[in-house]
Amino acid sequence: MLKVTFRFEHGESKEIFAAENENLLELARKANVAIDAPCSGNGSCGKCRVRLLSGELDSPKPRQISKEDYAGGWRLACLSRVVSDVEIEVPDIASAYKSRMKTADLSTGEEVRIFNDAKQSVEDAGIAFINDFLSCTIALDAPTLDDTMPDNERLTRALMEELEVEFVDIPHCAMVELPGALRAANWNVRCMGRRTGDRFTLMALAPADDASPICGVAIDIGTTTVTAVLVNLETGELLSRGSAGNGQIRYGADVINRIIESTRPGGRKRLQDAIVKETLQPLIRTMCAEANVAAERVLCVTVAGNTTMNHLFVGVDADPVRTEPYIPAFFHWDGLTARDVKLPVNPEARVILAPNIGSYVGGDITAGALMSMIWNHDEMSLFIDLGTNGEIVFGNRDFLMSCACSAGPAFEGGDISCGMRATDGAIEACTIDRETMEPTFRIIGGADQKPVGLCGSGIIDVIAELFRCGIISAKGQFVREGARVTQDASGFDCYVLATAEESVSGRPITINVVDIDNFIRAKGAIFSAICTLLKSLDMDVSCIERMYVAGGIGSGINMRNTVRIGMFPDLDLDRFHYIGNSSLAGAYAMLMSDQARDKVEELAQSMTYVELSTTPGYMDEFMAACFLPHTNAELFPSAME
Amino acid sequence: MLKVTFRFEHGESKEIFAAENENLLELARKANVAIDAPCSGNGSCGKCRVRLLSGELDSPKPRQISKEDYAGGWRLACLSRVVSDVEIEVPDIASAYKSRMKTADLSTGEEVRIFNDAKQSVEDAGIAFINDFLSCTIALDAPTLDDTMPDNERLTRALMEELEVEFVDIPHCAMVELPGALRAANWNVRCMGRRTGDRFTLMALAPADDASPICGVAIDIGTTTVTAVLVNLETGELLSRGSAGNGQIRYGADVINRIIESTRPGGRKRLQDAIVKETLQPLIRTMCAEANVAAERVLCVTVAGNTTMNHLFVGVDADPVRTEPYIPAFFHWDGLTARDVKLPVNPEARVILAPNIGSYVGGDITAGALMSMIWNHDEMSLFIDLGTNGEIVFGNRDFLMSCACSAGPAFEGGDISCGMRATDGAIEACTIDRETMEPTFRIIGGADQKPVGLCGSGIIDVIAELFRCGIISAKGQFVREGARVTQDASGFDCYVLATAEESVSGRPITINVVDIDNFIRAKGAIFSAICTLLKSLDMDVSCIERMYVAGGIGSGINMRNTVRIGMFPDLDLDRFHYIGNSSLAGAYAMLMSDQARDKVEELAQSMTYVELSTTPGYMDEFMAACFLPHTNAELFPSAME
Repeated sequence: MLKVTFRFEHGESKEIFAAENENLLELARKANVAIDAPCSGNGSCGKCRVRLLSGELDSPKPRQISKEDYAGGWRLACLSRVVSDVEIEVPDIASAYKSRMKTADLSTGEEVRIFNDAKQSVEDAGIAFINDFLSCTIALDAPTLDDTMPDNERLTRALMEELEVEFVDIPHCAMVELPGALRAANWNVRCMGRRTGDRFTLMALAPADDASPICGVAIDIGTTTVTAVLVNLETGELLSRGSAGNGQIRYGADVINRIIESTRPGGRKRLQDAIVKETLQPLIRTMCAEANVAAERVLCVTVAGNTTMNHLFVGVDADPVRTEPYIPAFFHWDGLTARDVKLPVNPEARVILAPNIGSYVGGDITAGALMSMIWNHDEMSLFIDLGTNGEIVFGNRDFLMSCACSAGPAFEGGDISCGMRATDGAIEACTIDRETMEPTFRIIGGADQKPVGLCGSGIIDVIAELFRCGIISAKGQFVREGARVTQDASGFDCYVLATAEESVSGRPITINVVDIDNFIRAKGAIFSAICTLLKSLDMDVSCIERMYVAGGIGSGINMRNTVRIGMFPDLDLDRFHYIGNSSLAGAYAMLMSDQARDKVEELAQSMTYVELSTTPGYMDEFMAACFLPHTNAELFPSAME
Repeated sequence: MLKVTFRFEHGESKEIFAAENENLLELARKANVAIDAPCSGNGSCGKCRVRLLSGELDSPKPRQISKEDYAGGWRLACLSRVVSDVEIEVPDIASAYKSRMKTADLSTGEEVRIFNDAKQSVEDAGIAFINDFLSCTIALDAPTLDDTMPDNERLTRALMEELEVEFVDIPHCAMVELPGALRAANWNVRCMGRRTGDRFTLMALAPADDASPICGVAIDIGTTTVTAVLVNLETGELLSRGSAGNGQIRYGADVINRIIESTRPGGRKRLQDAIVKETLQPLIRTMCAEANVAAERVLCVTVAGNTTMNHLFVGVDADPVRTEPYIPAFFHWDGLTARDVKLPVNPEARVILAPNIGSYVGGDITAGALMSMIWNHDEMSLFIDLGTNGEIVFGNRDFLMSCACSAGPAFEGGDISCGMRATDGAIEACTIDRETMEPTFRIIGGADQKPVGLCGSGIIDVIAELFRCGIISAKGQFVREGARVTQDASGFDCYVLATAEESVSGRPITINVVDIDNFIRAKGAIFSAICTLLKSLDMDVSCIERMYVAGGIGSGINMRNTVRIGMFPDLDLDRFHYIGNSSLAGAYAMLMSDQARDKVEELAQSMTYVELSTTPGYMDEFMAACFLPHTNAELFPSAME
């Protein structure tokens, strides 16, 4: 056996034994070492860069690594085979998508504001934020030799009277606490649980003077990023918020690669473990710890995610979603509890999944559509969620149409050589001086921070600015010379955003022709999907009276630039509204409001799903949109100014 | 650290590390080595005999071990402290109660006959053997591009139509199987589950041509012995049967010692693990394997056990049962599923507990009372279940009274120096020649078998015969000399049933004054409980028109001898009926029949519980009954003949 030692920049290390010729990326997966592999290890994306510190790898020089870097030990993990004991450095930069958790400071404004605005709109539309969960205090008579009623019957009778219910269910998790809790509380207890109709389910117990909140967790499971909030179920107050990379990322950047991986032996469990054990469990535990909330006080969990994410999360075979005739196991499904999927909350907590409506339009969109409010407008509105998939809903209070396109991970920084998630160090906005071709940035985390990479909104800006300054052509080719236009390590034409000295990693931050091409395909997928959906209604983009943009791309998104590059239609800028993470906001609404849950079900039922891949003309639209801004420039008069 | 090696007679061994001065019995428990300790390790019962093979123990000579045996290395584990590396021999004889599993040959007659008779009586009383569980086959349309309904909706609609139900629940365990099962079966599936009212819960799936049965398990959790049957839920056929010692035995022979153990740190889990992991899991797995039934096909489990056993089984604090005012956590409780208690069956299987009616009259008695049929008679009948506790129900179709007394484990061979369970090698019947004082035996397992020890029915016979032959007095003292009357290793007067040469173990099988005294107290507890219960109704034993005796004591019980020793009242012998393990039969009825379940609940509701320990006169009755046959010999005219 050979020994492989993974060393991390922050000083830790991990060891694993390997057979001769084992693949290094596979070994990293076995050792639970997060190395990005958006292409799922086929050598195309160049993200799985690691550095050989000692020992020997059988690893050819790929195009993505320069001669100098190769000489310096840099290798692609997916192309490397272990042939001796080796020490491998895993750069932090390579784990930008890694399951690194981040909790947000709720006191800072914008995101909470967007969230609250959305909630307000839903409430204004008559959807009450009232749910089934409650806590109440009960003073019991202590038993005596003359009053020997058993504990459960004593409490049941009192609860029936107090809550005016006919049945009280005491599941096992509550029963095992019952005798101790009643006696510790001196028969004066706080009961927490769920009332539905004439039935109360007891979920947690405490002494009567306990005042800590009963809680719920709302989760948005994105293909790339997972975000969640911990909420007081009685008041709706946000208690903590967190986000993390989806741990499944190492099995591929997109849903298709992950489904394929899930069909391999043990794959379904691996994919489920990656989202549940590696991502959700630590995320929920951290949020609870931060808000000082005990796990058993979390009585409900709502989850919004696309159809594939839903299936992989609950451990149900997703392969039929991928293959004709594209049939998911479920759209709507009611039977899930927290312990089925081992979430670290009350084991009896219901886990409510926002319903899917098609193989590629899932709960993230039905939940998000609720928050977009387009179902409540007379105006024709378009709601788009920019994620690894781009999903679109168009309509008004009379009808709703939806479709999905595969944009790839570019909007979240994936498939871009220096791309990263919108976290500290990301360039989130950029302008380029037309004369000097020098860039100016806004960096997440503060102006005095060195840049680490480019997040989605930054990429939009850079490409729009390169195009506006005539540095790149409509096809995305470099057409102007200058100090910042050069060739990168792989020999591709590129624009240098930050030199090696200016960047955190000590390697230059560049955007090359391959990145630009990837991005143009992503934006082309979005725009052509919008056009195709409208065309199926005999409409065009001029019919869009409002446009709601959601997604983790960030509030920094510059709508003018999205139009300049032909990603969004050329509408008046005041028609655009960035509504943040509407999927998470929708999960929050479903947590807090039974009526919101019903409304989402109703929206799901009424939405018509258009399968783009079988819609005539979509491919032509897509090809036409793979230019800056478009082969038909007349569609973008403002971009041409 | 010191090393302790336990060696077993059958050649295996087990090692554990110990701190200096650690108690040997505690170490054996840690190492999962079954050593009997009915007194829970306080040095009084002398059951935990082990032999020191090498090394040194700090272990005084107790009265229960002879000088010779002490010199030969015999020690009581509970009194021994480890002071060096040691090798310890654990005799098989000491593990007569051990969790050794036995499955019965269902083709042999008597027990199955008793079981079927009981079932027939219940059915004759109008209780239909019909339950909620069913299997049905469904032919689905395969999905197409034009028929993209998700799997769960497709199946749900078909089941709603086929079963005429309004709701179909698909819990997680069924959902994870759904896509694969439907496709493997080519959309032609067998659905198994439970229909209650307008709702069907899908629990298992198979191809339509699958014909293996859907099953249930009925379990009697006795304090000393656990028995169970695996049953075809549709036909009622017994598929296999098994029994094992209750793994909790090493924490004490009676419920009180076990409750005390359960209150120590980690104790509740230890006691639950002992019954679930050590006893029920292997028992159920063995029964399923024997009948070739997959775990997920077991859709329901019924459990009859006394109140303490119920509580320890589900992991609920039993301490309030033991301490004034003696309040259990539950009498009736509906909320249990198999996965709550980790039974190796379908995780969604309901686990139905026969209801308790008091701290010491539990589900074994309510289930047993159903099978006794006394609730269906005009005649005044007495039903008694002889176990570690003796529980009594008296009444007829108009009323039912019940009480419990602590008989101790004597009827199951405990608290008796050569006692054992009624398994192979046990002396189950005995006569003694009045002239020669020579014994004649019937031994379980065949006449040519050497005896191993004495089981309950054998003890009754031996004591009755010793008394009849004038070998012992009414107080249980030896009063006649003879070759077989001698002193045992501890120096106590005893009667030799088998010499060292005649026994399996190579040590003589004897019954000594302490054994006789223990047994007289046990039988005294039974008789005085019967008298006290009747007295509370202003009745006496002459009112008993029928007497039903249940329990693991075995069909070998000689009713004439029970009367001779004053254990049962002096009634005509044809009033006695041995009805076998009525607790298990009751659990079987509850499994097969919803009406039986309702009837048991009704019986539990209507039974009046008399707490003997607080009933005036009980202690006097008990003292008076601690003679052979009784201080008031007139109560036993036939014994005096």
